[in-house]
Amino acid sequence: MRVGELSRRSGVSVASIKYYLREGLLPPGERTSPNQAAYGEAHVHRLRMVRALIDVGGLSVAATRAVLAAVDDPDVPLYVALGRASSTTTAPDDPADVADEAWAAAERTLAAAVDAHGWAVSAENPAWHTAVGVLATYARLGDDDLSAQLGLYMQVMEEVARREVAVVVDRSDRARTVEGVVVGTVLGDTLLAAVRRLAQQHCSLELLGETPIRPRG
Amino acid sequence: MRVGELSRRSGVSVASIKYYLREGLLPPGERTSPNQAAYGEAHVHRLRMVRALIDVGGLSVAATRAVLAAVDDPDVPLYVALGRASSTTTAPDDPADVADEAWAAAERTLAAAVDAHGWAVSAENPAWHTAVGVLATYARLGDDDLSAQLGLYMQVMEEVARREVAVVVDRSDRARTVEGVVVGTVLGDTLLAAVRRLAQQHCSLELLGETPIRPRG
Repeated sequence: MRVGELSRRSGVSVASIKYYLREGLLPPGERTSPNQAAYGEAHVHRLRMVRALIDVGGLSVAATRAVLAAVDDPDVPLYVALGRASSTTTAPDDPADVADEAWAAAERTLAAAVDAHGWAVSAENPAWHTAVGVLATYARLGDDDLSAQLGLYMQVMEEVARREVAVVVDRSDRARTVEGVVVGTVLGDTLLAAVRRLAQQHCSLELLGETPIRPRG
Repeated sequence: MRVGELSRRSGVSVASIKYYLREGLLPPGERTSPNQAAYGEAHVHRLRMVRALIDVGGLSVAATRAVLAAVDDPDVPLYVALGRASSTTTAPDDPADVADEAWAAAERTLAAAVDAHGWAVSAENPAWHTAVGVLATYARLGDDDLSAQLGLYMQVMEEVARREVAVVVDRSDRARTVEGVVVGTVLGDTLLAAVRRLAQQHCSLELLGETPIRPRG
């Protein structure tokens, strides 16, 4: 199909399709003349994924590219791609941030929690860096609640991950498996965050006897 | 203090400080001459919050403004601000998206799950719209795993929210309470997502006997 039909079928504007082609999020079509290319069903599907990751998952174009690289290339370790597939920046912090005492303390806190839960995780998982960064930032703001919640977060996320990995194990097709993992992980973040806010509203009513959540002044 | 010292104290560049002033994320200093203003400790603290929300929480400038509005104005319902304080867009979808069958089915799925858990949540909570949007997007991609996980997500997030609301109830100072809620919620999203990826790596090793997570081809 031509780009116009690809746009109609996927619901993505021609301008956006051209942008995604330039950014490498969408593989080029088959060139049929100097000014025209033909696209197939795989392009329709890929465009839907790109929009889901960007619009619903909140990923940047760069993070989306990293995620799609894992889908396309079996040699990219999936856990590395998943660690990068986050709506928040996981770029290395300012060296000054990393060097301070809050950072070192956060790293000790996370290492102790991981040991206590008996988790086998590797330091090159980008999520390690992200988790330390959040704990350090929160401590710098003069608060320590998140460190106190860390054990609970680990306990509930182990439950969630065990179920999610079990679903993946059942799939036989590699491409579909990887796609399911990355899209499910990224969209799952957004769903978990939304469900957390609904739960906060419910628990606020339950514990404070008021709605909406509004701390007493 | 002058803007130069504010920059040094907060670790935020003068250019960024001026940008945040223009965008209304930072209240103006006290004007001491036509070209100079004086800033106080509250500005240092606010700048640290802004950077935590944007850099670590992944919020946009617009979302950060909405969050800070809740901190500053007791009349903004906190649950509405929290629903908006998300690193993913919660702007109303294209009317065509909202009108389709996937959207209606997702809304029925969420409503049934909320009823089953006995949650008291209101439809004007922006997180409701976000959750429906994620479920509908995932269904449109031809998958239904997230709907299957919804019950588990609700169960674990109720546990998390109950603990988090209990921490908030213990605080007596309103400004500190609201600040703790919004920053803890936004940074908690990032921490939960990072912990989820570490848990995926651990469970993948445990269930698949391999590391890194790499589905069999």
